[in-house]
Amino acid sequence: MFYGIGVGVGNPGKVTMEAIDTLNMLDVLYVPTAKKEEKFSVAHEIVKDYLNTNTEIKSRHFPMNYDTDELQCAWKSIADEIMLDVQGGKKVGFVTIGDPMIYSTYIYLLRLLRNNIEITTIPGITSFLDIASKNNFPLVEGEDPLLILPATMGTERLRRYITNETSVVIMKVYKNFNEVVQLLIDEKLENCSIVVSNSSKNEEVVFRDIKNVNKDDISYFTTILINRKWEIK
Amino acid sequence: MFYGIGVGVGNPGKVTMEAIDTLNMLDVLYVPTAKKEEKFSVAHEIVKDYLNTNTEIKSRHFPMNYDTDELQCAWKSIADEIMLDVQGGKKVGFVTIGDPMIYSTYIYLLRLLRNNIEITTIPGITSFLDIASKNNFPLVEGEDPLLILPATMGTERLRRYITNETSVVIMKVYKNFNEVVQLLIDEKLENCSIVVSNSSKNEEVVFRDIKNVNKDDISYFTTILINRKWEIK
Repeated sequence: MFYGIGVGVGNPGKVTMEAIDTLNMLDVLYVPTAKKEEKFSVAHEIVKDYLNTNTEIKSRHFPMNYDTDELQCAWKSIADEIMLDVQGGKKVGFVTIGDPMIYSTYIYLLRLLRNNIEITTIPGITSFLDIASKNNFPLVEGEDPLLILPATMGTERLRRYITNETSVVIMKVYKNFNEVVQLLIDEKLENCSIVVSNSSKNEEVVFRDIKNVNKDDISYFTTILINRKWEIK
Repeated sequence: MFYGIGVGVGNPGKVTMEAIDTLNMLDVLYVPTAKKEEKFSVAHEIVKDYLNTNTEIKSRHFPMNYDTDELQCAWKSIADEIMLDVQGGKKVGFVTIGDPMIYSTYIYLLRLLRNNIEITTIPGITSFLDIASKNNFPLVEGEDPLLILPATMGTERLRRYITNETSVVIMKVYKNFNEVVQLLIDEKLENCSIVVSNSSKNEEVVFRDIKNVNKDDISYFTTILINRKWEIK
């Protein structure tokens, strides 16, 4: 059996009992590293205290760029390795930050493996859920829709989605940060938005006044929560 | 301190370590019951094994209807009671199914209490995250938005949101179930949608062919996941 395990964001407290029980009985755990030759993995760091000492750890580089050939080649080779382990009778896990079904590279693995081996996926706390609770900032109520938008879709597309909506989450805000802030000001959303950078890490920063955030103050992973029905104190 | 604790959906495995540690040190835990005079609470059932034996349990009726006067009156009286407990130096918890910041009645409490007492909110696994993982059904990838829509917004409004979107979650589908199914067929979404009723409960049912679901087969809490980029096997 192959287990795709969502470990939540940033710290061990966000891991669920189901994830802990699964981590504890694995023969092999694949951990993704962001850079070649690097052994450090954020996901591994989060779960290391929950692991069985007999579990074999396999660090593997998962490319995060958009070079499709390199990407597909790397994923195919990792999927093949996982498949061999599973077919050899091992219980094999893979850890993924946040939730496996929301903007996760785990979906590549799932696509490659699902016709060949049995797969159990375990959900995790996503960054926007974590940020909302940590800041006592409700996301959505009643009959309103909740829109989860990656800022990478571009500012003009973002604008079309946001106009007139009550509840919006904007993820991966960095490249077009200044344009996104201007868009929120244009839409009169500055009193019902918060910006969080590096959620749940030591370097976490929360801004409740979006007009006073500089691009230098935020990191690559920045999230904005908007709720027109929730005025910031 | 007051703790609003998201306990995830349906079973104890979805509870996070942070929620368990918090539950374990409470003096008082408020548990919501759906009906007057009833003691049974789904949220309480999920967490009961994680509680300290010294914790006092207070079952309180939280109206789920739309009678605004009755609703506001009930919430106000519960908020006052919580405030008294906290001001008396107690560590007070409140458990909520799924995540506290997504369509949760906890938001009423937060609004009433946030100017008066200190509040810590703990996120939980929502039903749509749980259903997606359990069915190996990815929700969203890359630059696509994810739309979370309550079916209670009405079928025509739903249609306007859904047209041309890749990734959509429709929650609380029951009253207009047949209309929603017809809408998905009109939008040619029948091969990339799954319907789940009673997620995580014993009575859970999953339908991968939406054309073959009768309204009699589903319960009040039914969720539909749609991803045009993920063909159902």
